[in-house]
This record gives sequence, structure tokens and C-alpha cells, in this order.
Amino acid sequence: MNLFEPLQKPTLLLDESQARKNIQHMAAKAREQHIRFRPHFKTHQSAAIGEWFREEGVTAITVSSVDMAAYFAANGWDDILIAFPVNWREIFAINALAEQVHLGLLVESPESAAFLRDHLTAPVDIWIKIDVGNKRTGLSWDDPQPVQELLEEIRKAALLRPRGLLTHAGHTYHPDSPEQVCEIYEESVNRMNAVRNQLRTEGLRLEVSVGDTPGCSKCAHLGEVDEIRPGNFVFYDAQQLVVGTCTAQEIAVALACPVVAKHPERREVVIYGGAIHLSKDLFEWNGNTAYGLVSLPRGNGWGSPLDGAIVSRLSQEHGIVILSETDFDRVQIGDMVCILPAHSCLTLQAMREYLTLEGKVIPTMLL
Amino acid sequence: MNLFEPLQKPTLLLDESQARKNIQHMAAKAREQHIRFRPHFKTHQSAAIGEWFREEGVTAITVSSVDMAAYFAANGWDDILIAFPVNWREIFAINALAEQVHLGLLVESPESAAFLRDHLTAPVDIWIKIDVGNKRTGLSWDDPQPVQELLEEIRKAALLRPRGLLTHAGHTYHPDSPEQVCEIYEESVNRMNAVRNQLRTEGLRLEVSVGDTPGCSKCAHLGEVDEIRPGNFVFYDAQQLVVGTCTAQEIAVALACPVVAKHPERREVVIYGGAIHLSKDLFEWNGNTAYGLVSLPRGNGWGSPLDGAIVSRLSQEHGIVILSETDFDRVQIGDMVCILPAHSCLTLQAMREYLTLEGKVIPTMLL
Repeated sequence: MNLFEPLQKPTLLLDESQARKNIQHMAAKAREQHIRFRPHFKTHQSAAIGEWFREEGVTAITVSSVDMAAYFAANGWDDILIAFPVNWREIFAINALAEQVHLGLLVESPESAAFLRDHLTAPVDIWIKIDVGNKRTGLSWDDPQPVQELLEEIRKAALLRPRGLLTHAGHTYHPDSPEQVCEIYEESVNRMNAVRNQLRTEGLRLEVSVGDTPGCSKCAHLGEVDEIRPGNFVFYDAQQLVVGTCTAQEIAVALACPVVAKHPERREVVIYGGAIHLSKDLFEWNGNTAYGLVSLPRGNGWGSPLDGAIVSRLSQEHGIVILSETDFDRVQIGDMVCILPAHSCLTLQAMREYLTLEGKVIPTMLL
Repeated sequence: MNLFEPLQKPTLLLDESQARKNIQHMAAKAREQHIRFRPHFKTHQSAAIGEWFREEGVTAITVSSVDMAAYFAANGWDDILIAFPVNWREIFAINALAEQVHLGLLVESPESAAFLRDHLTAPVDIWIKIDVGNKRTGLSWDDPQPVQELLEEIRKAALLRPRGLLTHAGHTYHPDSPEQVCEIYEESVNRMNAVRNQLRTEGLRLEVSVGDTPGCSKCAHLGEVDEIRPGNFVFYDAQQLVVGTCTAQEIAVALACPVVAKHPERREVVIYGGAIHLSKDLFEWNGNTAYGLVSLPRGNGWGSPLDGAIVSRLSQEHGIVILSETDFDRVQIGDMVCILPAHSCLTLQAMREYLTLEGKVIPTMLL
């Protein structure tokens, strides 16, 4: 039976073979440059997909919440970095994890360092969050004094092991041009090393951890860093295609959606697939706001994105797809179309499970 | 114990007393004008909250998916309208429901009417979707010929009972000015009646169903309609506050979020509460893009929105909150802040359960 035939509702399809290639490619790149590959697992949130990384030699991972750390710890991972400023209110769960696995925490203030000193019951690695220009959070790279003070605060506490400096150069996701991605990446690496070189570390070797999918995918040389933490690359998505980080072929997930209405006068079809499936994340496509690209089923998979076709509007369950004149006639009510999502991490978060092109359901921690 | 003390993670708080007032107010308004109140349950998705509506005399409801219809049917509702263009691929589940409850379906094409004629096994009410200017989906109000043809197609099938004309004037959510909401509402009602009056119905009385929270909340006279279907009003949200549909006091949900970092140089605090909790829906606030308004805990609830404070950026788990100078000093790492979401329907969809101010957990169909 064809994969699409029994589908009744919006369904997140996963091209396992392509996702495995994406993993292999990134793992090989890090290995060749002698850099630790600590992939971010927030994109897929699945123990089964985690195993595909393990097969490529991955032993250390990044997560974005204490819950996610607990889930992967329960699934056999024992070197886990929570790349989110430490949340004091979860200290009991953090202590439980610290006693169970090799845990890394992110700290950016003396207050949080002091809190951990007073409340931790087991040793943890401490990564100091540095802001290299993204201005989301972290200590600014161009003022080493607060970093030095924080490091000293950390060294006062026996259970806090200063491990390194960590940044997320999130501004590579929105470059002025695709070429700018590697300029930003290199600048980030230089800034991280500038901070490291200015600190008085007295015998301590601090590591540098960077990692964003655009930089790690596009830039041939990963530079003077100890580890990379990209996550999105396992699936990529339309935002990454726009940045030039991936090809359409490398996008490994698509949301299969039933067509429920057609409007020939504006070449729009209405799909069952809205904000609660795709998320409301968006991108610019030929000057228009888009929530996804559109392709058609081909065998047990999907074809190339259709020229001039986008998901142009979303409400809770409705998606509005604009098609070219030719493609409009190829799509009928009751058919399925495949949407390449703006942001695969948020689409997975909404959908909570995958269906592989071989018809296998893959669960996540969200079920 | 204070409500906030044991909270560790982003938690969706529900002010039950205010939500009940919102329900009472809308139910009374419809009752006084002799209009059926068929509230949309996609906002709350909860059997327990459904009971608060039943206490106000509600017996007929609107939902946005077949799954949601099945959930509420299993919870004792037997007059259910699925206000989404009929999805052919769910015909088995639709038939199961049609045999169990008084089911209403939405049709906007002769193809879908023919499909139902060939596949339905139990009678259903058919509502014809009319587009009064929103341009999402439906047959255009200003061309009665296709509506007439669809009606005739429906009347050919014994199991399809033509019930009425239905519209969603979604453009009231984005008016040029708050005053425009009632202009759009009245225009919608007039257009619906214009369609109804031009159809040759031969003894059949078609009903008119309208319903959007802005119009039904703001406009004193609901006009010549048979039923209204607002949903969001049960909680309201920041988008509704901007449109002038509700007061800040009437907003009945807030996302309680831990503060994890502070950045005095830009008066920003970082909260644990991101796109996976609030959704990425947004609104304009004093010329800025905002994902939520900000208030502080007060007793076992929250205070008024802080002047000049917004959630200005969201990533997967991070929220960036900008505060005034005075308020910045009132908030410390480890504290909780309360975010009034841009769009309460999508925030509930992400959070999946509520905590009332009395400390009671209320589940939904999403768990």
C-alpha cells in the first residue's frame, strides 16, 4: 500500500535515510577536524533517533531543558549538557540528574553560581554563557571582567567544575546574505578565543563550545573550538534553505496535509494543517511571508518544492497554500500535499511523533 | 502555601472565576437577544471547562476537528458542529459520530457534497460556508449562483439536511481601528442575510451562523442571526486587548514563567517560556512586535500588565522580556513572572493543561 493512502490527518513524515545522511555528514566533519560533536537533541526529541547518532560515534549530547535531560538519561545517555541558563526552581531534578550522569550546566551570573554552590549535592560541569553578538543572553564577549569574576565565583565551590565557555551565535539564522553566515561564524569563534585568552585561569584549560546549524553546515573550517552543538541539521527546514544552509533534498521532514477546499479565482487550496501543526514560525520567500514550502507526494515520499508555491496563511487548523496555475490543476480535494516546514524543531514539537517513509511510527518524549 | 511557590516550570494559570464571568456574560447576551449560543470549544479543549458552559444553559457546541468532536461527544455533548471544511479522509470517524450525535458539517463545494452523498451512513446537518470578506475559505457572499447550485446538490442527498449558512468574519481580528470591529460585524451579518434572501429555498428556512470573539464581544446588537459561535472570549488574550475587545481584567489565562537571567544594560530579563509554550503568535504594541504582555504575581493570581513591558523575542525555550527601569529592579532570578499570551488558543494548545488559582489541575483532550 502507498504510504499516503491510509493517512487521514496532518502527519509528520520523516525521511530516515536523509536524516541519517545529515547526521553522518556532520559527524564526519567534526571527526576530521578533531572537534567533539555534541549535537543538540531538542530538534528531534526522540530516543530512537538518538540511536542514529550513537551509531555515528556520538557519546555527548546537548538538550534545552531539565525534562529533556531526564528523558535522554533514562535512554542511556550519560554526558548531557543543558544549554539553557540554569533554572533555580528545578534544583531537585538537577541534583537527581547530577547524581546519575555527567551533567553540564550553563551559568551566566554570580547569583546563579552562588545558588548552585549552596544547593548542589553532586558535581557538575559549568559552562559560562558568552554573548558573541546575538544579544539573547550571556555575558558580553567584549568585557572580560564580569567573566573573570564569575569564573572566580565558580571556582570557590567544590561541586562546580569550570569546564568552558559556551555561545550560541543565533544571529547566523538571519544573515543579510548567505555569505555572511561564515563571516558571523568565524567572528564568533574569534570572539570566544579572545575571551578565553584574556582570562586568568591559573592552570585551568577552558574549552570553547559553539554551535549553530548554519555555521556548522556551511563553513568548511570549524576553527579553534573544542566542541560543536548544532541540532536543526538533522532535518533542516525551509528557513535553512533560505539561508543557503541546505539543499531542498537535504530537508528530511515534511508535513503531509489533506486538501479540503480549492479556490480557483485566487489559485489557493485550503489544507487541514495550521498553526497547531506547523507552528507560526515563518520566513521570507520572494518578498512574501511564508510558513512552509509545498511539494507533492511522489511514491512513498515527496518531490521537489513546487515553483512559486508557499503556505501563505495559517490559522488554528487551516493552512492556505498558493499554487501556480499548472500545479493548481494537479491538486484535488481529498489529495495530500507535503509541506516543508519553516522551522522543523517547532513542527516536531507540535506533532510529537514521526512516520517514516517505510511506514514506521517513531515516538518522542512529547507523547 | 502560595500558588507560585511550588511551580518549577512554565505553567498555564487559569482564573476560573473570571472565565466563568466571561461565559456568563456572553451566554446572557445571546439569551437576551434570542440567539442560539453555540460556543467554539477549540479555545479551551477541556471537558471540565465545557461543564461551566453547560451550567449557563449551553447545549450546542462548535469544534474545529473530528477528533475534538469525538472527545466532546464522549463527554456528553450531543449537538456538535465541526466548523472546518469536511475532510474526506476522516469519513469513517465522521460516520461513527453521525450515528452517535446530532452532527453538523461544513461544506463549500459540490465535490464535497457529492462525496458525502456517496459515503455518509447517517444523517447530518449541512452548513454552507460563506466568505463575507475574510478570504480564508467559503463561497463568496456576492455571487449567489454557486451557493444556489451547492444547495441543490445537497438537497439531492437524503442524509444531507441543509441547515444554514455559516461564516467566520476573521478579519475582525485585525481591524484598522477598534471602532471598525462592529462595522465589519454588521456588514458580515448583512451580507449573510443578503445571500439568504437571494436563494430559492422552496419552503426551507436556512439559518445564519456567525461568530467571532471581537464582534460578539463588542457589538451591542448581534443582529438578524440564528446562532453565534465565539470561542476565544472564554479566556481572551493580548490580541483581543489590542483590538479593544476585552479589558486586561477579563483576560483569564497567564503563563507563569521562571526568571533565569537579567541584563540590566538593556533592561531585559530572560524567562523560561518560549515558542513551545506561548506559540509564536504576536501582536503590535506601541509600534513594537510583542509575543505577550507582562505582569507580576499578586497573591494567588496576577496583577495588571506592567507599563511598557512586553515579551519582545521568543526562541524555542527562551523568552526575552523588556521591563521599565522601576519594574526591572522588582524582578530577580528565581522569581516567577506572568505572561498574558498573544493568543490564548495557541498557548493552551502548547501547554495542554491548566492550573487554576485555587491550585486545581484541569486536563484537556491534548494530554
